[in-house]
Amino acid sequence: MTFHYPNGQSFSQKNPRDRALKKETTFANRGMRFEEAINQSNEYYLTHDKAVVHKKPTPLQIVKVDYPKRSAAVIKEAYFRQPSTTDYNGVYRGYYLDFEAKETKNKTSFPLKNFHQHQITHMQQCLNQDAICFVLLWFSSLNRCFFLSAEELVNYWSRQENGKKSIPLTLIETVGIEITPQIAPRIPYLKAVEQYLEKRSLSNG
Amino acid sequence: MTFHYPNGQSFSQKNPRDRALKKETTFANRGMRFEEAINQSNEYYLTHDKAVVHKKPTPLQIVKVDYPKRSAAVIKEAYFRQPSTTDYNGVYRGYYLDFEAKETKNKTSFPLKNFHQHQITHMQQCLNQDAICFVLLWFSSLNRCFFLSAEELVNYWSRQENGKKSIPLTLIETVGIEITPQIAPRIPYLKAVEQYLEKRSLSNG
Repeated sequence: MTFHYPNGQSFSQKNPRDRALKKETTFANRGMRFEEAINQSNEYYLTHDKAVVHKKPTPLQIVKVDYPKRSAAVIKEAYFRQPSTTDYNGVYRGYYLDFEAKETKNKTSFPLKNFHQHQITHMQQCLNQDAICFVLLWFSSLNRCFFLSAEELVNYWSRQENGKKSIPLTLIETVGIEITPQIAPRIPYLKAVEQYLEKRSLSNG
Repeated sequence: MTFHYPNGQSFSQKNPRDRALKKETTFANRGMRFEEAINQSNEYYLTHDKAVVHKKPTPLQIVKVDYPKRSAAVIKEAYFRQPSTTDYNGVYRGYYLDFEAKETKNKTSFPLKNFHQHQITHMQQCLNQDAICFVLLWFSSLNRCFFLSAEELVNYWSRQENGKKSIPLTLIETVGIEITPQIAPRIPYLKAVEQYLEKRSLSNG
């Protein structure tokens, strides 16, 4: 049933606001628990003076802002923009860290569709500047987490044209570093960073 | 003259949207030209493979999102949040860079009110991790730009209680590094970073 208000706006049983709220929840929950675990780990590392890593805010194009009297400015119209970087960056013992956190329900491989070209391009630019650049992969059905260096990811990505649409878990187990979740920090990814640094200094020396 | 629509909303000669637009312009222009010069310099450094530095998006609290059929999601209600970091960070030759860009019309000193406690706290956390952390100061009336290390700024900030409300230009000339604007990159701040690194390695060795 739909009828029209005098102002021309329609009213229907399906309230468009409900629809928006439902989709919002879906959007917010996608990958939320793993992201939350990373954010809490960053918080832990920050308060324990181990590293300074923050999630970047979502980039928005702000179109309209209201400035009500005696209260905070309200953004009334804005749009999501394509980010030009990865989600996380920061500093650990002088090293620049840069990473992305992704999860899958798959049990045998990690789908490459979780990554976008702009993220791969950014990772390549960071690698050119000797950054410590990586992805944290979460297999939610297996409860397993891996550190995979951007060198490996970019290498695999460039071979996509050969028909490879996902990275086999067996390969991730070989070239990645497994991270066992803990109580605090929940995802102790700095341990993997340390292992990666050791391996890198050995192969450079 | 103000009268009320049947829906209770008032109409007045001063259109509230005009007011919003006017304030928006003011907000957008504050410090805009210097920031624009920094952003263009970052772009230059990125495309020339010299450094990967991006401005962080403004953090917003998103409250309401509409998902119209066949068009992009529209944010209908959001609020500005207090950032927990500085505006810029990135990587240069393996070094983590972190900085804030500020400008003043003053001619003899740089007012400390341009900085906020959360920025100083973040800079101190970065310094603890051996970051290259600094501020770029622009004296718009003098057309002069300076690199000032976070060590110097934090040091000066901690002495604020002694009644110092701004950093004298004479001190900035002594402990900072002047950056002469160019055509491209407009603010060649990596030169100052290089000088800072040389000075640091000399005092550490």
